[in-house]
Amino acid sequence: MEVTPSNSFLGLVKRVERSVWFQGFIISIIIIAALTVGAKTYSLPYEVELAINYLDTAITVFFLVEIVLRFISYEKKRAFFKDPWNVFDMVIVVGSLMPISDTDMILVARLLRVFRVLRLVSIIPDLRVLINALLKAIPKMGYIALLMFIIFYLFAAVGSIFFENVNETLWGDIAISMLTLFRVATFEDWTDVMYETMAVYPFSWIFYVVFIFLTAFVFLNMMVGVVLDVMTQETSAKEHQEQEDNHQALVNQISELQKQVQALSEKLDKPKD
Amino acid sequence: MEVTPSNSFLGLVKRVERSVWFQGFIISIIIIAALTVGAKTYSLPYEVELAINYLDTAITVFFLVEIVLRFISYEKKRAFFKDPWNVFDMVIVVGSLMPISDTDMILVARLLRVFRVLRLVSIIPDLRVLINALLKAIPKMGYIALLMFIIFYLFAAVGSIFFENVNETLWGDIAISMLTLFRVATFEDWTDVMYETMAVYPFSWIFYVVFIFLTAFVFLNMMVGVVLDVMTQETSAKEHQEQEDNHQALVNQISELQKQVQALSEKLDKPKD
Amino acid sequence: MEVTPSNSFLGLVKRVERSVWFQGFIISIIIIAALTVGAKTYSLPYEVELAINYLDTAITVFFLVEIVLRFISYEKKRAFFKDPWNVFDMVIVVGSLMPISDTDMILVARLLRVFRVLRLVSIIPDLRVLINALLKAIPKMGYIALLMFIIFYLFAAVGSIFFENVNETLWGDIAISMLTLFRVATFEDWTDVMYETMAVYPFSWIFYVVFIFLTAFVFLNMMVGVVLDVMTQETSAKEHQEQEDNHQALVNQISELQKQVQALSEKLDKPKD
Amino acid sequence: MEVTPSNSFLGLVKRVERSVWFQGFIISIIIIAALTVGAKTYSLPYEVELAINYLDTAITVFFLVEIVLRFISYEKKRAFFKDPWNVFDMVIVVGSLMPISDTDMILVARLLRVFRVLRLVSIIPDLRVLINALLKAIPKMGYIALLMFIIFYLFAAVGSIFFENVNETLWGDIAISMLTLFRVATFEDWTDVMYETMAVYPFSWIFYVVFIFLTAFVFLNMMVGVVLDVMTQETSAKEHQEQEDNHQALVNQISELQKQVQALSEKLDKPKD
Repeated sequence: MEVTPSNSFLGLVKRVERSVWFQGFIISIIIIAALTVGAKTYSLPYEVELAINYLDTAITVFFLVEIVLRFISYEKKRAFFKDPWNVFDMVIVVGSLMPISDTDMILVARLLRVFRVLRLVSIIPDLRVLINALLKAIPKMGYIALLMFIIFYLFAAVGSIFFENVNETLWGDIAISMLTLFRVATFEDWTDVMYETMAVYPFSWIFYVVFIFLTAFVFLNMMVGVVLDVMTQETSAKEHQEQEDNHQALVNQISELQKQVQALSEKLDKPKD
Repeated sequence: MEVTPSNSFLGLVKRVERSVWFQGFIISIIIIAALTVGAKTYSLPYEVELAINYLDTAITVFFLVEIVLRFISYEKKRAFFKDPWNVFDMVIVVGSLMPISDTDMILVARLLRVFRVLRLVSIIPDLRVLINALLKAIPKMGYIALLMFIIFYLFAAVGSIFFENVNETLWGDIAISMLTLFRVATFEDWTDVMYETMAVYPFSWIFYVVFIFLTAFVFLNMMVGVVLDVMTQETSAKEHQEQEDNHQALVNQISELQKQVQALSEKLDKPKD
Repeated sequence: MEVTPSNSFLGLVKRVERSVWFQGFIISIIIIAALTVGAKTYSLPYEVELAINYLDTAITVFFLVEIVLRFISYEKKRAFFKDPWNVFDMVIVVGSLMPISDTDMILVARLLRVFRVLRLVSIIPDLRVLINALLKAIPKMGYIALLMFIIFYLFAAVGSIFFENVNETLWGDIAISMLTLFRVATFEDWTDVMYETMAVYPFSWIFYVVFIFLTAFVFLNMMVGVVLDVMTQETSAKEHQEQEDNHQALVNQISELQKQVQALSEKLDKPKD
Repeated sequence: MEVTPSNSFLGLVKRVERSVWFQGFIISIIIIAALTVGAKTYSLPYEVELAINYLDTAITVFFLVEIVLRFISYEKKRAFFKDPWNVFDMVIVVGSLMPISDTDMILVARLLRVFRVLRLVSIIPDLRVLINALLKAIPKMGYIALLMFIIFYLFAAVGSIFFENVNETLWGDIAISMLTLFRVATFEDWTDVMYETMAVYPFSWIFYVVFIFLTAFVFLNMMVGVVLDVMTQETSAKEHQEQEDNHQALVNQISELQKQVQALSEKLDKPKD
């Protein structure tokens, strides 16, 4: 196989990109980027701020180069986009390229650079695994989330019908009522909300107690259930396979024994010479 | 089999009622109904409010027609009432038929229409399953709930005997004391309640600490226990069946082998001709 | 066997005491007793209060008679005291016999009558089982509780050394510091406590964050662990027994087969006549 | 083997050090030390305080003697330092030797003596086991903690970019923002923080709701997951071993049977003499 100059360059890029020290180097750069993000929230002397800005630009350029090198290292360019973590990195890098010019844009540009901290998640394999496990649990929780949303929506509608006149900041419309109910669900000063409406509707405590029971307790139970469910399936699948293997081994061994006995039986049938 | 006009109409209704697109159509209508419920909590221009009211009436009529069609689609009318979800839907639909005339009744009528959001639960199969699973767990929790009620009642009685003179709004009678204790159980500003009574009874912190331990910790544990219990039984039942099947298969195979050996033995006994 | 009058009376008492309707009757009386406890927390007209007092006395007498009958129904009097539930009932009944005379004593006497509600726990079998399960978990939690107490004691000592000058009501001595830490552990307005000490010791947030991590998170984990532990042992013990039984059945069956083959072998050895 | 005087002394020290009554005696001393720590937080008459100080010195000396004896009882001195609990005890004992002279140092010296309470953990075997189990779970939680830190850091950066102008005490820099977010994560008056920023950024509730969901719910799930994981592995490892043993026993038994049948077969092949 002929090694073209381009190919040898591609090979070099690949080796560099996948080497342990390069990975460690990128992690260091991301941590430095994260520290500059943190440092900018302090009021610093002008010179330091300037130095951080230069460092920031350098990091932006480095990240751009790194993602381009990684893109080059893929032989099939389409495969690059098939790995969601590549797309994730690319979006973050491209996002942080936004030029800082307008005063309004400064906040947005700073925000986009903050997200470079997230690259830690995509570069450390164990964190990727953790995130994947988390994402896998989401569909399972989908219907529970829908049920919770229906409960919130229903109670928010009832709440804003009855309590709108009591306190418009808390129960003005259905959106603000849902936020108030979220507050109640986290037990955050929920009695203040309740005592206020109880002054007008003395039995409104039923509304809150029922809501808290439905959300806090039932929801918690369901979530524990889902976690356990996922868990049990995983562990028992492996265990189950082992048991099946053991069972099959026994079945095979006994079958073999049966054949031996069968052979013996045939030997007896055969008249001795 | 003779197809009478009535029968062919019944068949048509059944086919429509059970078709996927009709289910999707109903879900859309319910979502629109839910949105009108939400929209009404905002202050809207008169024309929009009027349009929403017309839409609301249209939805009411549609729901009525749908439930009547579903009733018709059942050959045995009694079977319709045997499915609790049908009864659930019917109650909601009939409830929302209440005419809006009296000013006092407006709130109640609006409330009843809010409950149409719940039809989402009865129409989406996965939500039905979720609710059924939830309802199945209730009897298991019955005695724990009773125990919790006894604990609350006891502490509320003790609390209202000792603390009534300290703060009548919180400890006035047993009902209000139970509400106060529920607040303490959710950790909501419970120290305010405690510091108030500690000013009179310096050792009343024992009351609160014991109560919090009894409810928050013990109760939580018990609930986790119940969830785990239900869970374990479900998963282990399936597993157990499989293990029993495997065991039985081995037993049968060895029995067969024993018969083979038995046959062999008999063959040896039989004198050779 | 001769049936003396005394014996026949004993038999009657036993039959009555253990009959389902008598159990139901006692439960009703306990519920009425519980309701009078609750009713007394309301301000009632004089006549009603008088009636309740008469009812209360009647209930006290009934409970006394019932426990005496139960004592009589035991043939071996010592066996009566061996059942802790009997002792539990007796203490409650004897406690509520205290005469109401002194004004100071009224509170105590009322308190003792409140505890009659607890007899519901001792009379309903399922509640007894629940309580027994709970009590069984306590020794397991003993060492965790000790560890928690050490953590609380340590932080309370540190807290009252450093923060005593900041706020004496919260950190005055080690007992009051432990109560403050219990408040922090329930997340109840803990930031108010923290911001106060941070004004003097800017790094005191470390104290709170570490404490919250140690108690709330670690403790929760440990408790879940204990619950799971108890659970797993219970369910797996039964499962384990079944698996052992299955295994033993197979071993026996194969042993039998081995004997058959052995017999066959001996038959071959024996020279044919 | 010759018993030198030194050896016999070593043997005596060992016997004393490991005797049950000496262990019990040390536990009593530690508890007394703990009580003096607690007592010092109260304002006591001068004589009592003096007595406690003498007691404190006596305890310090006793602990020093005990650790020296324990060191002597080890034949290989290096082995003493290999047990982390010995190092733990030594650090605590040496730490409490610091002389009280400077006024500033008094707090530190008192603090170091407080830590003597921790010796309860190292002397009670069950508490050691508990701590070891806890420490074993930490590496498992390492990556989750890292992920949580990244989430906190990211939200703190975003929060201090946007909300710095709203409230500098809460969002002034990234460190203080992380503390504020920890407060939000414990649900402690988080709505006060939110309502303040919502006055400037009406949609900032999204920030808080997303943050609470990410931390409180997701994190809880993950932690439950880790606990279950550790648990399941432990219990299933033992169970798995037993199943493997059972399986192997069956395999061996059937193998033996096969050999028997094989022998039978060979016997048949062998022509009878």
